[in-house]
Amino acid sequence: MSPTPRLFNIDCTLSYKLAQTTDFVFQIHALESADQHIQSESLKLTSSAFYRVYEDPHVGQRFLRVQAKPGNFNLRYKAKVAVARPPRRRKAPEMAIAELPDEVLHNLMPTRYCESDLLASAANKLFGHVAPGCSRVETICDWIHENIEYRTGSTDSTSTACDVFLKHAGVCRDFAHLGVTLCRALNIPARLAVGYAMFDTPPPDFHAMFEAYVGGRWELFDPTRMSDPRELVLIATGRDAKDVAFSTIFGPVQTLAILPEVERA
Amino acid sequence: MSPTPRLFNIDCTLSYKLAQTTDFVFQIHALESADQHIQSESLKLTSSAFYRVYEDPHVGQRFLRVQAKPGNFNLRYKAKVAVARPPRRRKAPEMAIAELPDEVLHNLMPTRYCESDLLASAANKLFGHVAPGCSRVETICDWIHENIEYRTGSTDSTSTACDVFLKHAGVCRDFAHLGVTLCRALNIPARLAVGYAMFDTPPPDFHAMFEAYVGGRWELFDPTRMSDPRELVLIATGRDAKDVAFSTIFGPVQTLAILPEVERA
Amino acid sequence: MSPTPRLFNIDCTLSYKLAQTTDFVFQIHALESADQHIQSESLKLTSSAFYRVYEDPHVGQRFLRVQAKPGNFNLRYKAKVAVARPPRRRKAPEMAIAELPDEVLHNLMPTRYCESDLLASAANKLFGHVAPGCSRVETICDWIHENIEYRTGSTDSTSTACDVFLKHAGVCRDFAHLGVTLCRALNIPARLAVGYAMFDTPPPDFHAMFEAYVGGRWELFDPTRMSDPRELVLIATGRDAKDVAFSTIFGPVQTLAILPEVERA
Amino acid sequence: MSPTPRLFNIDCTLSYKLAQTTDFVFQIHALESADQHIQSESLKLTSSAFYRVYEDPHVGQRFLRVQAKPGNFNLRYKAKVAVARPPRRRKAPEMAIAELPDEVLHNLMPTRYCESDLLASAANKLFGHVAPGCSRVETICDWIHENIEYRTGSTDSTSTACDVFLKHAGVCRDFAHLGVTLCRALNIPARLAVGYAMFDTPPPDFHAMFEAYVGGRWELFDPTRMSDPRELVLIATGRDAKDVAFSTIFGPVQTLAILPEVERA
Repeated sequence: MSPTPRLFNIDCTLSYKLAQTTDFVFQIHALESADQHIQSESLKLTSSAFYRVYEDPHVGQRFLRVQAKPGNFNLRYKAKVAVARPPRRRKAPEMAIAELPDEVLHNLMPTRYCESDLLASAANKLFGHVAPGCSRVETICDWIHENIEYRTGSTDSTSTACDVFLKHAGVCRDFAHLGVTLCRALNIPARLAVGYAMFDTPPPDFHAMFEAYVGGRWELFDPTRMSDPRELVLIATGRDAKDVAFSTIFGPVQTLAILPEVERA
Repeated sequence: MSPTPRLFNIDCTLSYKLAQTTDFVFQIHALESADQHIQSESLKLTSSAFYRVYEDPHVGQRFLRVQAKPGNFNLRYKAKVAVARPPRRRKAPEMAIAELPDEVLHNLMPTRYCESDLLASAANKLFGHVAPGCSRVETICDWIHENIEYRTGSTDSTSTACDVFLKHAGVCRDFAHLGVTLCRALNIPARLAVGYAMFDTPPPDFHAMFEAYVGGRWELFDPTRMSDPRELVLIATGRDAKDVAFSTIFGPVQTLAILPEVERA
Repeated sequence: MSPTPRLFNIDCTLSYKLAQTTDFVFQIHALESADQHIQSESLKLTSSAFYRVYEDPHVGQRFLRVQAKPGNFNLRYKAKVAVARPPRRRKAPEMAIAELPDEVLHNLMPTRYCESDLLASAANKLFGHVAPGCSRVETICDWIHENIEYRTGSTDSTSTACDVFLKHAGVCRDFAHLGVTLCRALNIPARLAVGYAMFDTPPPDFHAMFEAYVGGRWELFDPTRMSDPRELVLIATGRDAKDVAFSTIFGPVQTLAILPEVERA
Repeated sequence: MSPTPRLFNIDCTLSYKLAQTTDFVFQIHALESADQHIQSESLKLTSSAFYRVYEDPHVGQRFLRVQAKPGNFNLRYKAKVAVARPPRRRKAPEMAIAELPDEVLHNLMPTRYCESDLLASAANKLFGHVAPGCSRVETICDWIHENIEYRTGSTDSTSTACDVFLKHAGVCRDFAHLGVTLCRALNIPARLAVGYAMFDTPPPDFHAMFEAYVGGRWELFDPTRMSDPRELVLIATGRDAKDVAFSTIFGPVQTLAILPEVERA
């Protein structure tokens, strides 16, 4: 039986000042999936900008490609989304390599921000003796929560899971990258998940969690414990933050506002 | 008009000794594509091994998934392949971000072995003033050939483009990773390409080159200058070596033989 | 015959705002040496601060140790210094390991900011075939000047020679660290040198150069070419920037002013 | 009252095969110090080798500089040494920066293998809330012992404290580097200490521990717990392994034997 859907209103405003014609790729559209249904949505951009929305045929996430002219560029995305994510199956087992679906296999590989090869030795020292299963991923999340300090400004856009492990500090995307990396190092497929999240304390912001593939399903985890995985309005999943950046900007811009607001409808 | 096809015979033998049941993913099958046609092929494995071949629906490359029992495990892949790769279009222009096809966009992103974000500053210092186009990629290849020493054993499986740039030494996959990375740093989409190559001097080995997307097409480059791109029997292209490893082995094994032979048919 | 001394007036003001009692170690005193004579000097600190000057018995450089109370802390050092540094002996040979004085030997070793072990391969590829001698160090300086972009803000206090080599960008201390590192990698003893320098363009700042040990003497080099080595009023030499930092501060402070002025007397 | 001295016999054999004239710097001589007295010693080298012993005037450690001709080069150092190291004063307090002796100050700085700046954040997260003093250094040693796996071959001569922290694995010198680094990150002066140690299980080998400066004295710690600090026959202390390497070799050699034997006399 499906859980009762929770309804969320998204209201996301992005605003930049451009000195020259600039290309962007945004990932801000809510994902339409089995667990998440978009009831309505709207997108409004500065009228002089060219844009198109590209939907990835395999994953379903949407990319908003924009070319904007010099001057102010504003974007507003609104959506009403019903999220009905089932509770985590805490007894789910890890899967043998041979059992993994073909298309999941690549989620075992290290990526730019998730050097699971370099952290394999540490992952095995720390979690090699923990009983396998969904609960081992929870143990990893507990370890991250206890050992890594959430500190705004402690990392930047080039920081990887190794950097975060070295610093024992980071922000949500760093926590998630470290979770992904420790899982992959133990042969548990894992990937980054980003979306709109409600936090107890403002400001609203894009949020990053991670998913691990256990018991034949992707389960969502938030090692920051800042929000409830069942309440994440998912935008996209990907190998790591480079696959799912809310904005990729080609050239220097001045950022005026990043306001990804979300509230219970 | 299409170039006259060149015919190659592939005869690839891989052999391992296993102490326990072991999972493998191999990428050894020649690619069927517009430029490359498989006239015949055969695959033979130690009979006790379970296996299946998975063809990626988007790129077409094939993954051979194997679970082999303790003892010797042998694999032999033979193929007759016709390669008709058109000559490089040296006048091909670089493309504006806005012109890039949707599915090519992600080839601008940094990956595990290709930290184009970290080498962006160096790439711009070295090649920022070179006229854009296919010829700029050739300039990058020339620079790599002149500055990076080809030295067996100078790097290992964790070495990235940054490591290679620091060492000024590497092997074919390192040369290719550096090419990919410098291109991406200049907003030229690029990806790794691996296959069977004929070298002037033995031993035969899997070879890595790279492709850059210029003039609306993927063009193949070999910064090692060890073989002719028109004579590469392509196995796969991917973000970097992790996507296209000829073998990914889950667990410790003893390697007995890696003999990817190729000759003109 | 000794060169005619050049006279310089140093007027160095440092100013901080402290929220709590804070310890400092400064290296701002001009060095008294064979090539450099202090004609007069004065030091004035906020009167509530405790301080002492420690002169290193081996090198002669002076450390100003300070403990300052909460509030504003100001320091002013003035000196009149005669510098009579002989011109570089461009024909000086490199020395065999066995000929190096005992106390110079350690200047071949890698340090925090100068990973000569990691850059050994690149140094040999780039400069291994250049004829040895003082002129080879000049070739290294030329290479740095041509290839590394001087860009304020491109590096920070944790940046090492490897980082600078990767970025192909840096500031004076980075240029000097890279010079030190490439020399050591070629078995030429080298060390960092810092002091007061006159630049063509303001603002005045502490400057870093490096020294290489050739022909039985330490010779001074400035790969930034921003100032004349004969006009550097030397403060100290050391293994790398950590040995000769103008300020080492134990705790968070607000910096109000760093004004190391120098002019021809 | 001084502890009863323990007597040790050192018998250290080093043997190399050289293809060309090669320079070496060895640090194999036992240190003469307040806690350690050399009762007798002898040194014998292949007769064709030139050598000299250089005693560092500040620390007292001895460097054996050798130039050996092509062919076999052998070295044998024997010594009878009385070690009377007082027991660790576990109540010793940490010292304020302002109280540290001038010559100890530099032991707060990061070095090639001990990047205390990069690990400052982790050190504070892990040990910032532990009560200061000698016992905090013991807590650091306990943490290292529990979290870092002793694994021969897991690191190499370029591995730093950060690498070891990332791998959660290393050998004695790595454990000691990590101890040094975490101490410095907390403003506790620390340095590497190497010597001859008796292990429960063979083979004999040079051993690395570290010293922390607490309560006005250098105290010795062994985070590997493989041997008793009171039984280390000290060779040298230094900033990190580069300062106290038992051998620094200028050029390629073939190592035939490294046999640093020690036993109770």
